[in-house]
Amino acid sequence: MSAVAELVERTRAFVTEHVYPVEREVVAGGRVTDDALRLDLQKKAKEAGVFGPLSDPRYGGLGLDTRGQAQVLEAAGASLLGPLAVNAWAPDDGNIHLLAHVANSEQQERYLAPLASGEVRSAIALTEPAPGAGSDPRMLRTNAQETDDGWVINGAKHFTTGANGAAFTICVAMTSDGPTMFLVDQDNPGLRVGRRMPTLDHTSAPGGHCEVEFIDCEVPDSAVLGEVGRGLELAQVRLAPSRLVFCMNWLGLAVRAQQLTVEHITGRSAFGVPIAEHGIAQGLVADNEIDIAAARALVRSVAETVDVHGPASPQARHETSVAKTFVSEAVWRVLDRAVQLHGGLGVCEDHLVARFLVEARAFRIYEGPSEVLRWSIARRVLRGPR
Amino acid sequence: MSAVAELVERTRAFVTEHVYPVEREVVAGGRVTDDALRLDLQKKAKEAGVFGPLSDPRYGGLGLDTRGQAQVLEAAGASLLGPLAVNAWAPDDGNIHLLAHVANSEQQERYLAPLASGEVRSAIALTEPAPGAGSDPRMLRTNAQETDDGWVINGAKHFTTGANGAAFTICVAMTSDGPTMFLVDQDNPGLRVGRRMPTLDHTSAPGGHCEVEFIDCEVPDSAVLGEVGRGLELAQVRLAPSRLVFCMNWLGLAVRAQQLTVEHITGRSAFGVPIAEHGIAQGLVADNEIDIAAARALVRSVAETVDVHGPASPQARHETSVAKTFVSEAVWRVLDRAVQLHGGLGVCEDHLVARFLVEARAFRIYEGPSEVLRWSIARRVLRGPR
Amino acid sequence: MSAVAELVERTRAFVTEHVYPVEREVVAGGRVTDDALRLDLQKKAKEAGVFGPLSDPRYGGLGLDTRGQAQVLEAAGASLLGPLAVNAWAPDDGNIHLLAHVANSEQQERYLAPLASGEVRSAIALTEPAPGAGSDPRMLRTNAQETDDGWVINGAKHFTTGANGAAFTICVAMTSDGPTMFLVDQDNPGLRVGRRMPTLDHTSAPGGHCEVEFIDCEVPDSAVLGEVGRGLELAQVRLAPSRLVFCMNWLGLAVRAQQLTVEHITGRSAFGVPIAEHGIAQGLVADNEIDIAAARALVRSVAETVDVHGPASPQARHETSVAKTFVSEAVWRVLDRAVQLHGGLGVCEDHLVARFLVEARAFRIYEGPSEVLRWSIARRVLRGPR
Amino acid sequence: MSAVAELVERTRAFVTEHVYPVEREVVAGGRVTDDALRLDLQKKAKEAGVFGPLSDPRYGGLGLDTRGQAQVLEAAGASLLGPLAVNAWAPDDGNIHLLAHVANSEQQERYLAPLASGEVRSAIALTEPAPGAGSDPRMLRTNAQETDDGWVINGAKHFTTGANGAAFTICVAMTSDGPTMFLVDQDNPGLRVGRRMPTLDHTSAPGGHCEVEFIDCEVPDSAVLGEVGRGLELAQVRLAPSRLVFCMNWLGLAVRAQQLTVEHITGRSAFGVPIAEHGIAQGLVADNEIDIAAARALVRSVAETVDVHGPASPQARHETSVAKTFVSEAVWRVLDRAVQLHGGLGVCEDHLVARFLVEARAFRIYEGPSEVLRWSIARRVLRGPR
Repeated sequence: MSAVAELVERTRAFVTEHVYPVEREVVAGGRVTDDALRLDLQKKAKEAGVFGPLSDPRYGGLGLDTRGQAQVLEAAGASLLGPLAVNAWAPDDGNIHLLAHVANSEQQERYLAPLASGEVRSAIALTEPAPGAGSDPRMLRTNAQETDDGWVINGAKHFTTGANGAAFTICVAMTSDGPTMFLVDQDNPGLRVGRRMPTLDHTSAPGGHCEVEFIDCEVPDSAVLGEVGRGLELAQVRLAPSRLVFCMNWLGLAVRAQQLTVEHITGRSAFGVPIAEHGIAQGLVADNEIDIAAARALVRSVAETVDVHGPASPQARHETSVAKTFVSEAVWRVLDRAVQLHGGLGVCEDHLVARFLVEARAFRIYEGPSEVLRWSIARRVLRGPR
Repeated sequence: MSAVAELVERTRAFVTEHVYPVEREVVAGGRVTDDALRLDLQKKAKEAGVFGPLSDPRYGGLGLDTRGQAQVLEAAGASLLGPLAVNAWAPDDGNIHLLAHVANSEQQERYLAPLASGEVRSAIALTEPAPGAGSDPRMLRTNAQETDDGWVINGAKHFTTGANGAAFTICVAMTSDGPTMFLVDQDNPGLRVGRRMPTLDHTSAPGGHCEVEFIDCEVPDSAVLGEVGRGLELAQVRLAPSRLVFCMNWLGLAVRAQQLTVEHITGRSAFGVPIAEHGIAQGLVADNEIDIAAARALVRSVAETVDVHGPASPQARHETSVAKTFVSEAVWRVLDRAVQLHGGLGVCEDHLVARFLVEARAFRIYEGPSEVLRWSIARRVLRGPR
Repeated sequence: MSAVAELVERTRAFVTEHVYPVEREVVAGGRVTDDALRLDLQKKAKEAGVFGPLSDPRYGGLGLDTRGQAQVLEAAGASLLGPLAVNAWAPDDGNIHLLAHVANSEQQERYLAPLASGEVRSAIALTEPAPGAGSDPRMLRTNAQETDDGWVINGAKHFTTGANGAAFTICVAMTSDGPTMFLVDQDNPGLRVGRRMPTLDHTSAPGGHCEVEFIDCEVPDSAVLGEVGRGLELAQVRLAPSRLVFCMNWLGLAVRAQQLTVEHITGRSAFGVPIAEHGIAQGLVADNEIDIAAARALVRSVAETVDVHGPASPQARHETSVAKTFVSEAVWRVLDRAVQLHGGLGVCEDHLVARFLVEARAFRIYEGPSEVLRWSIARRVLRGPR
Repeated sequence: MSAVAELVERTRAFVTEHVYPVEREVVAGGRVTDDALRLDLQKKAKEAGVFGPLSDPRYGGLGLDTRGQAQVLEAAGASLLGPLAVNAWAPDDGNIHLLAHVANSEQQERYLAPLASGEVRSAIALTEPAPGAGSDPRMLRTNAQETDDGWVINGAKHFTTGANGAAFTICVAMTSDGPTMFLVDQDNPGLRVGRRMPTLDHTSAPGGHCEVEFIDCEVPDSAVLGEVGRGLELAQVRLAPSRLVFCMNWLGLAVRAQQLTVEHITGRSAFGVPIAEHGIAQGLVADNEIDIAAARALVRSVAETVDVHGPASPQARHETSVAKTFVSEAVWRVLDRAVQLHGGLGVCEDHLVARFLVEARAFRIYEGPSEVLRWSIARRVLRGPR
């Protein structure tokens, strides 16, 4: 068995033994996904040797290439809390990637090291309330003024993922030289974390999606991540891997939903035979199998592209857009059929599939709505060369 | 303007003025849909002359035929709480219909009159935990033993809609002569209302879907609704109108979601122009318009069948099955596109469409999952005559 | 039985007895749909009293309103040749409507009377090869120059439906005052009917879709149909009813395909039971039933709008666009499932469904591709008022 | 550049230079796909070094593994005639595979060698008219009686692919020991090739799908392929690779259709801008890109499974079923959108996409209709282990 295959097995066993029970407490028992829960799961993941599929061994990670991540994260994704447990959930997954590629060594030591090791969490502040930056990042309105010894940031953000309880926030703000990324410590008095937004997804990670304000928020020059004026390019560096990690995780959840469904319909009867013997139900089971197989093949194929051409290559950008669109929709279909095959129980949070469906709805929107992705995919196709 | 058209206008005005503000408090403000809320809305509906589209003038209702109901309830359905406000929400809508068609005069006076007038609420106890009756009502396990002066009911139910706070429950139980419906007062010591199930839908009505137990529950002979042994036929009497009312209400919500979406995308810009000018967004808007038009035409056409052939006719049963399947799926598509067109805000309960989507998920399952309905539709088609 | 219901029955009997045998000769026997075939079928239709559902009794028609047409044409549409037999197929259906609404009395006598009675056929020349008018009629390049005693038309058209063998062609050409419609006799030496285009649809009517050239084609002033400069508005007058008649006809074919499919799968076995007992097959049968029911309801609802508000009203334009989009796609799905349920035989023209599918492909494109219709639907929705 | 990548380039160049012109003559010019055409194309393929992607170098083939085939056949599939040109079209592709795996050395010399080299064509006679074997091979009625010196076959077949002009036919017939495969020379007087069936697909290969009768057809013992009684298992050996080759070829056609579409819509305008700038058109282009990417990834992933686990392994059988279902439907969607984006021209055989669509319709049925495949996929999933 290859090292990756062995790690997949170990991850699967870890999730089954340690994460499923906690997931059930959260979904059906009202337990809140907070940092105590996170730290406990991550401690166990470290003990099981499955922590850190996205990070470098120097930070305690597993040092996998993207293809290896695809397999391991599908296993971790079998639970809503699996990716959190192994430290591969938004926004930390993308932030780890971004810092690993862009941060200078001092920043890596200060921000990446504790983040990759699970010691702290982080946030990303990009999206803004209208008329600021949403799907169109060029509408950025938060600004940073240069001062004698640093910068002063002002502006409002929302959907700031992970903000509540993070150790630091990566903030994108407009400077006179263009959009720029800043590392802002969460205890900076100019950073005000507001309301946690009541989003449909609220189970998978602590920290939520928050409203955040930067009010005369002073940061030193050393807070600039990468180069001044290149914030949107850096957001792109973050985006392709982040989209693909999403796909890996959610694919795992689709696989789980199919398993739960198969168990459910083979164990229950209606109209004289097990539900599993009704042809229309079988059709849905097959549709799920097909969607899962296509999604898995696509994720692994794109992972190879990322490994071969690099995460910031045009190929990787294009193919991760394609994968994000297909996989987010395929996963949605799978979860929706899983609910349907559970009948009335499928819309009751006693059964995991109900929560899975609601939690997954945002996947078709976050990190690029399908419509925006389709638009950009088409334009790349149309301008050739093909 | 016809009387119905006038009533539609009045209902629309009522919902806009009186129900929308309450809906916002519930969805985005955490207010609970309880009986105080219900009584307040229903009082205002009476004052506005829009209360009771499903019931007879002798009970304070509007005395509409099914075609008229279709138009008025589409208007009422524009809010999640609109049908409740006019007393046309499950399970009371179906129970009003059932009692009007089946109850004897004494039962009508005691149960139908206060129910139709909104004085009290009711519950329906049909579905049972496995291995009892789910989609297949013949799997009924709750039983009623005849005694010298009545019956003793024993058994477990779940998804007992409206149980918490109802004045009475219509319970289907197996007797030696077959399935039978019983009217059980909620204060009967043998009726134990248990846990409210954590279903995805929890906003539209008080009472929820509950677990209920009947433990040596004694009821007199006069509690039998209709005839002994005909409980499943009576359930069918209830089912066709109930499915169609669902369609009317939810169609209204789809129309509302489309309106909210149009407002949203004409008012916000991305990539240099209003979202409404992006072709892919326009495609979704058109898809919604088409789904709404087809759903509306189908509902009204089937309403005519119900009026002409009767709610218990084979035509009505077949066509309401077809309508329920199509409309529940069309409404789901509309709401899903509405969420998508709201972008990130669409999965945040600050915006109504997020809650609409989650709330509507059960519509494709309650009163017959699409798969079971497709199965029965096909068998009717296949056995002809066509 | 109402007069319309009686006519539906008569049309159904006529199609079954007289049209089905001819259809089989055409589809599976290689017989060509020519004018001899047309005249023979139309003679029989007149004898059966089912000729002319779209025209006025003064021209031998049945004098139906749009709602009546919807029912009768669904019956006629059960065969690919049924609409031709009753004189309700493109382009004559639209031309009859156009001439009835727009032609002066002299033109009606000369062109409408023989057309409505089936004595002659007609053509419509609107679409042009690139870069001329396609989906966008404003790109019109064929022009008409005014002369002392009339007009000279020059330009190339294609997809000129019915051109081969028509008695006259309605040609849209650009004048200095805007697009204008002209009635051109087919024996005009300036009208050159070229190649019949090899379109997928070639069974339903004689005349095909032809390439046509107008070369110094001289017509008198009396050839102007309606007013000079109003050609595109007149095309719109023609369009709404024409789209709806398409829907009626094709809906009939979908109903027939479903019947053929039900017969096929109830009569054949696989894996030990009739195909009709396999659940996945049942799912497709139900999907067909649902699509047919929704399409029928929508067609009849829009027919009522046309009757109430007039065929040129904004409501009729909008709703016929919606109906054309939905019905053309629903019919396509039904035919596609019918093919699938026939297995290998479904792609063999021994069985009608194979030809039905191919023939119907153009329905989603002719008279407005779904994409163009969606675009216009969305813009109407977005500019409100709703 | 790897050997496979180099071969892909060569195949692409060959198809573009030598096959496209012939394809145009066939589709738009009425040229018939006969053996003269085949031999000419295959001669050129040999000269170009691209002949025989499915066969062994000892027979003049390219000796590719399945992964290599996937890439090369996608390139060959860019034309309807490309697979024929390189000798990778049904039924010869499957027969080459079958003979290579099952035939004894004498049979290989006599049948496989000339087939693999393109010297002759072959046929496969499995499907029978009702009530014989269709999707369910166990309904086999053609029988073979053992005689003193061989076998006598009697029975009727249809959909006998390639029969007209083949050198031999592989016939499946029932013996007292079960279904058995026989190699029957086409000049055997007991083999009567009847009518070529009028199937929608008739362009891609000579020979068609024929009705065939075996009338006291005497064959020697040496005609038995593999073992007596194992005919259905051998059909399975043939099936998995045959399905996957179908997927590879048709994927190539989908890619071509997308290219033709991109060229078409970037070169033509409507409503003031190139069609390619309309958002709804862009949405279809993106959908095509996504379907192609997912189909390609799935084909290559399953090809790896076939290489690793063997073509007759349970994994290969399951995954090729999944791939066949997904890819046949994805290709159909792509071709359908391509037609739609061509507007009226898309249903005119002047443009290749019209023919592509019609030709491809059978792909969702031949070698297992999607419904039968879904059924078998579901049952494998449901019986676990997963």
